[in-house]
Amino acid sequence: MTVIYDRVALIGLGLIAGSMSHAIREKGLAAEVVGFARSAETRDVARDIGLCDRITDSAAEAVADADLVVLAVPVGAMGAVAAEIAPHLKPGATVTDVGSVKQSVIDAVAPHIPAGVHFVPGHPLAGTEHSGPRAGFASLFQNRWWLLTPLPDTDPVAAARLSDLVRAMGAKTDNMEPAHHDLVLAVTSHAPHLIAYTMVGVADHLRRVTDEEVIQYSAAGFRDFTRIAASDPTMWRDVFLHNKEATLDILGRFTEELFVLQRAIRMGDGQQLFDYFTRTRAIRRGIIEAGQDTAAPDFGRVAPAR
Amino acid sequence: MTVIYDRVALIGLGLIAGSMSHAIREKGLAAEVVGFARSAETRDVARDIGLCDRITDSAAEAVADADLVVLAVPVGAMGAVAAEIAPHLKPGATVTDVGSVKQSVIDAVAPHIPAGVHFVPGHPLAGTEHSGPRAGFASLFQNRWWLLTPLPDTDPVAAARLSDLVRAMGAKTDNMEPAHHDLVLAVTSHAPHLIAYTMVGVADHLRRVTDEEVIQYSAAGFRDFTRIAASDPTMWRDVFLHNKEATLDILGRFTEELFVLQRAIRMGDGQQLFDYFTRTRAIRRGIIEAGQDTAAPDFGRVAPAR
Repeated sequence: MTVIYDRVALIGLGLIAGSMSHAIREKGLAAEVVGFARSAETRDVARDIGLCDRITDSAAEAVADADLVVLAVPVGAMGAVAAEIAPHLKPGATVTDVGSVKQSVIDAVAPHIPAGVHFVPGHPLAGTEHSGPRAGFASLFQNRWWLLTPLPDTDPVAAARLSDLVRAMGAKTDNMEPAHHDLVLAVTSHAPHLIAYTMVGVADHLRRVTDEEVIQYSAAGFRDFTRIAASDPTMWRDVFLHNKEATLDILGRFTEELFVLQRAIRMGDGQQLFDYFTRTRAIRRGIIEAGQDTAAPDFGRVAPAR
Repeated sequence: MTVIYDRVALIGLGLIAGSMSHAIREKGLAAEVVGFARSAETRDVARDIGLCDRITDSAAEAVADADLVVLAVPVGAMGAVAAEIAPHLKPGATVTDVGSVKQSVIDAVAPHIPAGVHFVPGHPLAGTEHSGPRAGFASLFQNRWWLLTPLPDTDPVAAARLSDLVRAMGAKTDNMEPAHHDLVLAVTSHAPHLIAYTMVGVADHLRRVTDEEVIQYSAAGFRDFTRIAASDPTMWRDVFLHNKEATLDILGRFTEELFVLQRAIRMGDGQQLFDYFTRTRAIRRGIIEAGQDTAAPDFGRVAPAR
């Protein structure tokens, strides 16, 4: 592979930035990867494990002379970070972000970007339930989508270069309008996460069923919800607060639909339930055919040792 | 291993019965495994792949001289099957079932069981999103719970022998009251399944987001719901219709809780969301420590080839 950016600065050193550093360094896509995290503990871990070529003690220092700056912090923190680094950005540099919400990040970040610096918002649709500087791995983006939501005045050359990096890390790119992105993600990610958090919370509250029973007997479906509901609390708090309208819209539709199915159960309408469950099976097939999941039963998950 | 039952008859040849046949034959736990399925197509497949030692063309023939009869049909069909086989059961035989609901199966099956035959209801908490005679595999029950809900008059010797078989197939057994079982499973399995079916149905209906987008961008959380929502429609229709009260109870609690979180999003109460999401993370850790799931990120799921 060839070097795409001389120096890449990662602001925030969690799962996504860490995985980017692993992928970029493994494939030699940048001459230097510099990292910064607000927490001293995170910086110490990052230094210990050699996560980047260099870890700085300030965001300003990290972005100095960087050709690409990646904002990889919770979406609620993007605006403040952009304001902090703005005076230190190199003319001609590209700033991108990896936030799960795009319109509110654009609103918060774009006003701080100086003339002569390119802002190309982005969102890798990849992650795991783990977080922090130790959570990343180079193959995280392999065969995953990385959506870019360029603005009307985004420099096409800067956007193309970022696309090159993204594809070199193994991902597929597509462009999308920010508002449409936020709606699509409300369906495919934000509503499912809130629903999973809620179901796990219900189980937690239910005193008639002891915690231990919920945990021991989780393999019948519940445990897959707990994986999603183990995702980073700060990140997800910010996602819901910053994609409020689309998330509430989808949750409203979800509740309506749930009531229809609850009524079918109450009325004993087996045909309606059967037809519904048959339709949803087809969507799973589509996801496997699109290469977005494994066809192995139970995700190919191996039973843990006794 | 030693032979625990001379002849085991499996009525219904789906994922659970198929996995039992593989496990029993692999470990030599029965001298003969006989199978029957109502559908001629299923019987043909079972014969083709050698799923059992012998496939019969009637349930009566399958249970003749069987020491253990396993009812592995959708819970709505249990009563009719029990009525059909009752006259042909061998005195001293044990009948069990693998239904996901226990009280309604007991109500449907117990009245048909002749004096001198032992009925020990059971439920293996194991499965995948695949179904049919080709879906089974010997390790399905490894390290999973197999709950037994014996009746007050169940013969303890017959129950202990069934437990021996279950443990020899790799599972762990516990006894539970039928009504309590149905509540626990409403939390850990039935409500999560209905919720997953509902969320996938919402995505399917949403015309502003094309099907293709939902499928392509599913890796952000949604695809885990689709695995659950790809489960066998007939089985799940019957589960909801036969565990109606407990499922509706838990879904009612779920909806209340969802409204609380929706309100927190609408009001911008980040602290409430953060605290909630922090609590749910702990439950995931409990499940991993209990050996009921893998700690590998993303279930250790490998990205499909490009």
